[in-house]
Amino acid sequence: MNLLIINGPNLNLIGSREPEIYGVENPFKMVDRLKGKYPQINIDYFQSNVEGEIINALQNAVDKYDGIILNAGGYTHTSIAIADAVKAIKTSVVEVHMSNVLQRESFRHISYISPSADGVISGFGATSYELAIQYYILKNDE
Amino acid sequence: MNLLIINGPNLNLIGSREPEIYGVENPFKMVDRLKGKYPQINIDYFQSNVEGEIINALQNAVDKYDGIILNAGGYTHTSIAIADAVKAIKTSVVEVHMSNVLQRESFRHISYISPSADGVISGFGATSYELAIQYYILKNDE
Amino acid sequence: MNLLIINGPNLNLIGSREPEIYGVENPFKMVDRLKGKYPQINIDYFQSNVEGEIINALQNAVDKYDGIILNAGGYTHTSIAIADAVKAIKTSVVEVHMSNVLQRESFRHISYISPSADGVISGFGATSYELAIQYYILKNDE
Amino acid sequence: MNLLIINGPNLNLIGSREPEIYGVENPFKMVDRLKGKYPQINIDYFQSNVEGEIINALQNAVDKYDGIILNAGGYTHTSIAIADAVKAIKTSVVEVHMSNVLQRESFRHISYISPSADGVISGFGATSYELAIQYYILKNDE
Amino acid sequence: MNLLIINGPNLNLIGSREPEIYGVENPFKMVDRLKGKYPQINIDYFQSNVEGEIINALQNAVDKYDGIILNAGGYTHTSIAIADAVKAIKTSVVEVHMSNVLQRESFRHISYISPSADGVISGFGATSYELAIQYYILKNDE
Amino acid sequence: MNLLIINGPNLNLIGSREPEIYGVENPFKMVDRLKGKYPQINIDYFQSNVEGEIINALQNAVDKYDGIILNAGGYTHTSIAIADAVKAIKTSVVEVHMSNVLQRESFRHISYISPSADGVISGFGATSYELAIQYYILKNDE
Amino acid sequence: MNLLIINGPNLNLIGSREPEIYGVENPFKMVDRLKGKYPQINIDYFQSNVEGEIINALQNAVDKYDGIILNAGGYTHTSIAIADAVKAIKTSVVEVHMSNVLQRESFRHISYISPSADGVISGFGATSYELAIQYYILKNDE
Amino acid sequence: MNLLIINGPNLNLIGSREPEIYGVENPFKMVDRLKGKYPQINIDYFQSNVEGEIINALQNAVDKYDGIILNAGGYTHTSIAIADAVKAIKTSVVEVHMSNVLQRESFRHISYISPSADGVISGFGATSYELAIQYYILKNDE
Amino acid sequence: MNLLIINGPNLNLIGSREPEIYGVENPFKMVDRLKGKYPQINIDYFQSNVEGEIINALQNAVDKYDGIILNAGGYTHTSIAIADAVKAIKTSVVEVHMSNVLQRESFRHISYISPSADGVISGFGATSYELAIQYYILKNDE
Amino acid sequence: MNLLIINGPNLNLIGSREPEIYGVENPFKMVDRLKGKYPQINIDYFQSNVEGEIINALQNAVDKYDGIILNAGGYTHTSIAIADAVKAIKTSVVEVHMSNVLQRESFRHISYISPSADGVISGFGATSYELAIQYYILKNDE
Amino acid sequence: MNLLIINGPNLNLIGSREPEIYGVENPFKMVDRLKGKYPQINIDYFQSNVEGEIINALQNAVDKYDGIILNAGGYTHTSIAIADAVKAIKTSVVEVHMSNVLQRESFRHISYISPSADGVISGFGATSYELAIQYYILKNDE
Amino acid sequence: MNLLIINGPNLNLIGSREPEIYGVENPFKMVDRLKGKYPQINIDYFQSNVEGEIINALQNAVDKYDGIILNAGGYTHTSIAIADAVKAIKTSVVEVHMSNVLQRESFRHISYISPSADGVISGFGATSYELAIQYYILKNDE
Repeated sequence: MNLLIINGPNLNLIGSREPEIYGVENPFKMVDRLKGKYPQINIDYFQSNVEGEIINALQNAVDKYDGIILNAGGYTHTSIAIADAVKAIKTSVVEVHMSNVLQRESFRHISYISPSADGVISGFGATSYELAIQYYILKNDE
Repeated sequence: MNLLIINGPNLNLIGSREPEIYGVENPFKMVDRLKGKYPQINIDYFQSNVEGEIINALQNAVDKYDGIILNAGGYTHTSIAIADAVKAIKTSVVEVHMSNVLQRESFRHISYISPSADGVISGFGATSYELAIQYYILKNDE
Repeated sequence: MNLLIINGPNLNLIGSREPEIYGVENPFKMVDRLKGKYPQINIDYFQSNVEGEIINALQNAVDKYDGIILNAGGYTHTSIAIADAVKAIKTSVVEVHMSNVLQRESFRHISYISPSADGVISGFGATSYELAIQYYILKNDE
Repeated sequence: MNLLIINGPNLNLIGSREPEIYGVENPFKMVDRLKGKYPQINIDYFQSNVEGEIINALQNAVDKYDGIILNAGGYTHTSIAIADAVKAIKTSVVEVHMSNVLQRESFRHISYISPSADGVISGFGATSYELAIQYYILKNDE
Repeated sequence: MNLLIINGPNLNLIGSREPEIYGVENPFKMVDRLKGKYPQINIDYFQSNVEGEIINALQNAVDKYDGIILNAGGYTHTSIAIADAVKAIKTSVVEVHMSNVLQRESFRHISYISPSADGVISGFGATSYELAIQYYILKNDE
Repeated sequence: MNLLIINGPNLNLIGSREPEIYGVENPFKMVDRLKGKYPQINIDYFQSNVEGEIINALQNAVDKYDGIILNAGGYTHTSIAIADAVKAIKTSVVEVHMSNVLQRESFRHISYISPSADGVISGFGATSYELAIQYYILKNDE
Repeated sequence: MNLLIINGPNLNLIGSREPEIYGVENPFKMVDRLKGKYPQINIDYFQSNVEGEIINALQNAVDKYDGIILNAGGYTHTSIAIADAVKAIKTSVVEVHMSNVLQRESFRHISYISPSADGVISGFGATSYELAIQYYILKNDE
Repeated sequence: MNLLIINGPNLNLIGSREPEIYGVENPFKMVDRLKGKYPQINIDYFQSNVEGEIINALQNAVDKYDGIILNAGGYTHTSIAIADAVKAIKTSVVEVHMSNVLQRESFRHISYISPSADGVISGFGATSYELAIQYYILKNDE
Repeated sequence: MNLLIINGPNLNLIGSREPEIYGVENPFKMVDRLKGKYPQINIDYFQSNVEGEIINALQNAVDKYDGIILNAGGYTHTSIAIADAVKAIKTSVVEVHMSNVLQRESFRHISYISPSADGVISGFGATSYELAIQYYILKNDE
Repeated sequence: MNLLIINGPNLNLIGSREPEIYGVENPFKMVDRLKGKYPQINIDYFQSNVEGEIINALQNAVDKYDGIILNAGGYTHTSIAIADAVKAIKTSVVEVHMSNVLQRESFRHISYISPSADGVISGFGATSYELAIQYYILKNDE
Repeated sequence: MNLLIINGPNLNLIGSREPEIYGVENPFKMVDRLKGKYPQINIDYFQSNVEGEIINALQNAVDKYDGIILNAGGYTHTSIAIADAVKAIKTSVVEVHMSNVLQRESFRHISYISPSADGVISGFGATSYELAIQYYILKNDE
Repeated sequence: MNLLIINGPNLNLIGSREPEIYGVENPFKMVDRLKGKYPQINIDYFQSNVEGEIINALQNAVDKYDGIILNAGGYTHTSIAIADAVKAIKTSVVEVHMSNVLQRESFRHISYISPSADGVISGFGATSYELAIQYYILKNDE
């Protein structure tokens, strides 16, 4: 099984930025840890601060991945274009957030992406990503 | 580890109600299946159509359970009282939904419960409950 | 033909409460009068102030009644859970109101139940219930 | 007893327009059928696509009819002027709709007319008109 | 003079829940203290997490009490049904809150109950209840 | 000086409709009285319940009148088309209302016509029309 | 007949401020002109930039004036306190505006004062004041 | 190919009204010019200021025209009834506007008609009509 | 104990203004009555119609009073500046209202002052002030 | 004549994405077809998923093209920056959409770009682009 | 160069009020410090808690000052009357705030004054005033 | 001291675009002029039309600059992602605007960036940038 994790703007700073919210593990270490724990799965990682490059990554993932784990960061709440890409491709997408977005500013309470995603997992820190992997494992087992 | 699944109004009809959305497995069978799959965990199940009884169940769960998996159904979007109970007790609560609530009517897009919950998992059908169990397993392993 | 009248919160006070709005006939007398006038129909009556018990009554009515005449009182405007129950069961439901709700406070102008009901009859006092019975008679005659 | 049915814009197309919603019986046939079924009542029928002509018809109905059954169609949701006419005349008016307007676009959820009408009957197809007639029969019997 | 204190959802947890907001005195102790301080008044106490049981309690209080001190907790902001009960009964009702609700989340800023209550006292902790008792003493003295 | 008074929907009922609000003088009598009081002015009167005929009257008034006194009744609050006509013609228009519209329902608080009119006079009963005539007399004197 | 003209904030600048909107006649000259034209009426004039002094002036006018012509300027749209004063005193108040407020910024479209005033005259420049005087003359003649 | 151009309220004034916005060519001349340029198409023209007559024209066009070019003017933004007519008939309708409505007042930014039309062309002056004709030519060629 | 009662705009009219709402006792008499009843407390009284003078009074009260009983009248709903003063001074402030503001116009439903006050007492007429005094007595006894 | 077609995010997928909405012709084929049909016009094509690159393309088009045909896709509804670019350059821009955006989600109903564009053409599929070309041909002929 | 600093309500408390937000330097000391640092500029200072006195000060500043530095405090967000004064006088006004108002309550996010001011400087503490002085120095140098 | 000026979309056009608003000096010249005037400060300049590249620039500025002067142009009002970057980095950021954004369209009245910035300077043209430099000089001097 091939999975692609896509991280949006400022998520490259995880590990150094606001550790009391996001923890101290940076995304590369997290991906390495998950690869070690789930060796049967090929996990690729992509991060960009550019909205359009996230769209490119989603479009390029078609036919290459069995599932995409997408944390679009701040674009979650403003990007119709990313949501359109999620809808246009046929690949399954799970939306994840590290923090519980509903505990934060009201402009973070809406997600353009959710209606196009298979499901949403938010609030569990780095574990949000791992639960998305678990989803694909369970789905694969059916 | 002791976990309590609390289901809110009309979720007792799962399995017979709108199977194209909710699947054909009723909640008792689902709990049995999960118990068989995760024998190391004690999983209790409670369902009520009465808002106040869900509050009672949450209050009574204190000191008895390591985690609560709460699908408050239609009360998710209207019950400040249940949200207050989730906040008042110290037991960890994960909010789950079978359907992707953001794909449904706009009055289902807000959740009073989410800001008080550890995290939210929605849109994966019966798998939403299983991912919440996985969360408690992963959390327990830390 | 079997019909069930379900009355919601405070409607047990009809006859004594604000008679200039609701008239002087209490619901039990009204049901007796309607039974006398329509002897060919079996009319049952249920009232509760508890939201969840109204949901229970709706769920229990399945396969027992040809139609339900529902006046959910104050829950009409706040209960997604009752509306979900109306939608989940397959039994026909007619929503009735004694007063013309659109002549009252603005928070009474929305009904979560209407979109799930067969139709709505409001503003005719106790006659609203009788017109709902007439609807089932006419429907039965088709 | 003299009753006047007033139909608003596009309701002349009933029978040919969207039969899955509005049925196949055109309004003239419906009136004939109701006349046949209720021979003791004189039922007149008026239809216009012009907002002001509906106001004229309401004003002219004073002293000629015991009740008016008004389906103002699309003007229901936009016409303060028709609502003013309903309020200004003393003749009883029942507002009817064939479809359940609360199941349709949100701009159809408000009615300027309802606060001025005796009551509202909606969602029962052609039977909505017949229930309004039943209301006047019941009212007459008191 | 007979007074009834009605406490709504989660207020049974006062004393243990968030003591920095609600203090350390649980409601039973508070009632005992008030009984001791105001021996000339009969003070009864009722608490429920169930919305409908609060309505039942309000209806049953008619003719038994000279005044009701109501803290409907989270239902204050969502329950038209409790507000209808307060309005339908003729017994005087004072709405109280321990915390200053206007310092909290915006969804706590509206109260359906206030327009039906004699008056509102909020923000004084347990003293809010005592001031309501003082109100009935002062009113009785007039 | 030539002036045209245009009355909108239901204003033909003035004198008989709600006399406590609108007085007992019907519009024809009012116009006769004003003609008698201001013999130096030619005052014409037009009334229609049809929105489009009011537009026709406004368009036809060009070059024939020195001023138009317009009470568009219920169309005041809904008709962009009448407002467009007022703006498109170059003839001076004064908007009048008999009642103080800001003391009535909130949907009467907006006027599409006001931004296109020279000025607005409201709340003085039949005197609103006379003040508009006074305005044209004063304007003519400058 | 005694009339009091009250002008609110910045209206003392009329004549020098934005003459293309407000004309070149300052308020003192206007009052002198009106006094000369209507010698049978005693016209007093008061202006203040202080909201509370306008309230004082309204309260002090009781029993001294037959009518008050009030242009509250910018306070029109923000002052509940002035509106309360207009309502609390029994003296007749006419609200006037020189400009057509509905042609300006949207925050000028609401008036707290209008519901408490006898009527409103706006958009006629200095003539708005004169029409208010005409209203009191006409009213006096009845 | 038979096409019908329907113009709504005040569009008969084009050519004389605000020529800097609408140009100097009146609609009759425009239709003549288009007929001369597209001799292979039969182009009929209808204009009315009356909302209901536009509905009549739409209903009468069924089976007589291959396409309707509709500029409903001010009714575009307020008429659910015209929109219902566009939807009820099966004839293709293109909505056109001469001005770019999104550059004007906010109440012109919504169109009830657009969701029922094939497409919308706005902002090109008289050329908007010609582009609609081009659309029917291109559609016919397919 | 030293207490200061501050009354806002138009509250000097209490006793003469709308006695059915505010009673017949003017504020000076009320203060005298309260002084007679609570001789152990020094009660000062200040009233102004000027927003800024209320702010001055609040600022000047620092270090002179143990508590302030503030009825800001119409400024309650519009004055951020008074609310800032309440927050800036350290003296305890209780907000009182004679009427139940939630039974009145919607623009009276918000209070800028409440979030900065210790608590709020509203709806008990002159007794609202006395309950605030009781609060300071009870608080002093702790 | 030189024209530039700019396509925004996800429009590169046209032809493969949701063919029931967007048809089966991909943009390159469409441009080739249009070039073949309009050989007298030089038509260039640019597509990007990156908002800022669309701004770059608009800025670079100055002095090189007689007109720009812009379909900004999902950025239409969120990008003030693209709208600013359209406004800042002097080159004529026509906004096109293949689908009728007003038949889709409400967040697609606003366009930041429209107020800055010459005009808008939407709902005609690939023909929307061709009509824009026709507009430039007609404009060139004047 | 003559500059006038106008401070609004509660800003006289700076130095003692919430020092963690506003610092410990009171306004008189700040003005002295600025005078010492910029001896070539005449700096006057005015403070009032009364809205109307701020308007008076603005009106009186005409022809006496080259610039006004205005911190209207809480009136910034509610006073149309002060904004009108800023607009009516021709003297240049710079709006300053010590705190970053956009980090505070949402009712502080709007400023009626900003659209009439030359510019806005906020969030730099006492340095906001000094930057405004720098602006006038730079402007003077041009 | 090292400062970085970051300009957002379309600000590269300053000098040629709408000179009556933005002046005739292009950004490169402005930076050169400021460098010449403040030789003791190292001023770098970055401009991009791409939202994500502005985020990259902000992230890269960490540890290299003592302050960032950010004019995010149109992204100011739509970009949560840039605001997140400003918040995530620890470097001081001053938000500047050349025009007074509150005098422009309402969608420019909100800024996502302001709550994360040290302060905001807007409306002074190119001088806005220079005042930000002054701020850093003053801050450095403390």
